Amino acid sequence: MNIIDCAMKAKDASVYLATVDTNTKNAYLNTLAKTLILHADDIILANEEDMVRSKKENISAPLLKRLKFDKTKIAESAKGLESLAKLPELVGITQYAMELDAGLELYRVSCPIGVIGVIFESRPDALIQISSLCLKSGNAVLLKGGREALKTNRILTNIITEVSAQCGIPEGWIQLLETREEVNDMLALDEYIDLIIPRGSNQFVRYIMDNTRIPVLGHADGICHLYVDKDADLGMAIALTVDSKTQYVAVCNALETLLVHNSIAAQFLPALKKTMDEKHVELSGCEKTCQIISATPANEEDWRTEYLDYKLSIKIVDSLEEAIKHINTYGSGHTDAIVTHNRKSAMRFMELVDSANVFWNASTRFSDGFRYGLGAEVGISTNKIHARGPVGLEGLLIYKYKLIGDGHTVAEYADGRKKFTHRKLEKKF
Amino acid sequence: MNIIDCAMKAKDASVYLATVDTNTKNAYLNTLAKTLILHADDIILANEEDMVRSKKENISAPLLKRLKFDKTKIAESAKGLESLAKLPELVGITQYAMELDAGLELYRVSCPIGVIGVIFESRPDALIQISSLCLKSGNAVLLKGGREALKTNRILTNIITEVSAQCGIPEGWIQLLETREEVNDMLALDEYIDLIIPRGSNQFVRYIMDNTRIPVLGHADGICHLYVDKDADLGMAIALTVDSKTQYVAVCNALETLLVHNSIAAQFLPALKKTMDEKHVELSGCEKTCQIISATPANEEDWRTEYLDYKLSIKIVDSLEEAIKHINTYGSGHTDAIVTHNRKSAMRFMELVDSANVFWNASTRFSDGFRYGLGAEVGISTNKIHARGPVGLEGLLIYKYKLIGDGHTVAEYADGRKKFTHRKLEKKF
Repeated sequence: MNIIDCAMKAKDASVYLATVDTNTKNAYLNTLAKTLILHADDIILANEEDMVRSKKENISAPLLKRLKFDKTKIAESAKGLESLAKLPELVGITQYAMELDAGLELYRVSCPIGVIGVIFESRPDALIQISSLCLKSGNAVLLKGGREALKTNRILTNIITEVSAQCGIPEGWIQLLETREEVNDMLALDEYIDLIIPRGSNQFVRYIMDNTRIPVLGHADGICHLYVDKDADLGMAIALTVDSKTQYVAVCNALETLLVHNSIAAQFLPALKKTMDEKHVELSGCEKTCQIISATPANEEDWRTEYLDYKLSIKIVDSLEEAIKHINTYGSGHTDAIVTHNRKSAMRFMELVDSANVFWNASTRFSDGFRYGLGAEVGISTNKIHARGPVGLEGLLIYKYKLIGDGHTVAEYADGRKKFTHRKLEKKF
Repeated sequence: MNIIDCAMKAKDASVYLATVDTNTKNAYLNTLAKTLILHADDIILANEEDMVRSKKENISAPLLKRLKFDKTKIAESAKGLESLAKLPELVGITQYAMELDAGLELYRVSCPIGVIGVIFESRPDALIQISSLCLKSGNAVLLKGGREALKTNRILTNIITEVSAQCGIPEGWIQLLETREEVNDMLALDEYIDLIIPRGSNQFVRYIMDNTRIPVLGHADGICHLYVDKDADLGMAIALTVDSKTQYVAVCNALETLLVHNSIAAQFLPALKKTMDEKHVELSGCEKTCQIISATPANEEDWRTEYLDYKLSIKIVDSLEEAIKHINTYGSGHTDAIVTHNRKSAMRFMELVDSANVFWNASTRFSDGFRYGLGAEVGISTNKIHARGPVGLEGLLIYKYKLIGDGHTVAEYADGRKKFTHRKLEKKF
């Protein structure tokens, strides 16, 4: 099948998948979990082939690490499927019900978006995780994996397809695009794909966002800030800097730029410097910072850089407003925090910083679907529409309006013979 | 100011506009209503200049009609502003509140999207309507009107700017881009504009959708269907066809294609033909249709055409499934209806037709924000994400996550010293 045939098949399946009941979907998830464990040896064998070939082809160490799919990771994937089965059904929820007139009833009912395009680098667990999120929310899925994971992705897709058939999930709902097709071919399928979810490095996501007309759910950069206010507890500020910066440096919600109020800088920065040295964090500071502590002079580019490494840029600001302005100018709208015991300043910060996640006295690392209690995470979005911040299953849903009448025509309302009642109903569709 | 300066000003203003309280926004709307009436003569004078110049430049009659802004239209605009002031506040609503752990509280709070780009052809009332919807929802707005309405748009924007200053609305929240800048310049401003709302012909909207990376809220085509099922009341089917097709032909929710079940076609079509002749509706039919009644033979192109005129295409189908498949293939996901007294068929139709609005025994013309009781209409969207169908003020909002802690770090949870409680809170932020 060529890529357009795959996309058409997924689109056809999506119509019927939208109507599959909760028990069937959950049975699929639980059966898939068991089947993965059952076929663990075959999966590992296929994955080893990919590992050997990829090593020969000299792919980078981080990619290789993400490619590895061993017993532990298979067990984790299976566990993820079982938890997903336990989450409540979100399809078919009546969000709004209104009587427009006697016998004319309007319902707004949640429904799947349709066809989700998933593009991911190496990690085979992403294939299982995202396809199952799509299934649970009633969406068909077109998957494009990296060629390094070819054999692993193929066996996983075969298992998924078999379990789908066993459990009565509409055929064709999941389509694996193999390596001959280019990512760009998929990005052009706006007629069939309703939403793209990319999983991979920020360069990878940026490329996808820049090269498609299909809406993309995700984020490229995560340039997160911590602002140490003049009214901050300095011990807390140091602890939050350590956690935000060093708890896991390679992730989008890690701290990149520290903003420090002028009035406490001379007291705070030497103590911070000491701790950062212990943690082997390299510092890059504005001119004023460099007058207080030893740091590499920062330039304009530093404020726009997501280091994803043991490196932190520091800027001294004269006011809360300047901190907010800096964040809104250089940030990526991901996660930004303030440390202060002044409630008014905290409220102003959270109101004016235009980011998906705004925190008061908490580490930027909390910005995550599981920590937020969303149950499952589709990804973290820095979009300004549809879904923002950590996105749960809800982000894979939209709604349709269903109107039930008894031969009602608009002409009668237009010429005044009838009048709308617009009475909220308590009923469900 | 050049277009980028305008956009930056709007973006800066949007941060503060998001925090303006309800009373201030409503006072602005009511004052603007009064001021428009007060300055009606000046507005009409400016509009007459535009009309005279546009006539000289031979702009089309429909554009000219939409350009006219007289006393009646000004009064209607003022009335619209006053109703908008009466709608409830949607900014700052707590949508979700959860204790992550003792002293660590997460809130999801609604907020404006940011900067809305509005591009419209001629109609000056669109300037007032959309800018006021943006204001009520706390969004800044960049307006690009047609050059035919230059003088009218300028005086309206001046009045809006003056009333904004009087009422304490942040300066710069509304920016009128004048004619020297091209629409294309605006479409490239994805760094500053979060959402584009186009108002104009379907060709105009299509052009905008095809030429920007910024999300667009709206619809190009409205290829709406009515399916007359084998279990339809044929009298009702004729009445709904008349209303859907002829109540107002030039609108997106008017009927374009009638699908008729094979088993009732011989009985239904002659009666329909008689009524359509009386209403001067030209018919274009599939082969089978042309064997029953006199009609122009329809080709593939007819199923994809939004006539916006006294013309209707007719296709005979063998089953409910075929009708659904036709709609999902050729429709535009706008509004589609079934006529039947078979509840099961109606439910199946509403479930499987992938459109924003799916109706049972009601005219497609009901698909409209005011008829739906949404209070105000931003537009009708055929998007599959964010907002679908008639969009009220809600479509101009998104949310942010606000997290309040007391120095909480992620490390403690990662190493098991602490555990998340994930307890839903009843509190508001």
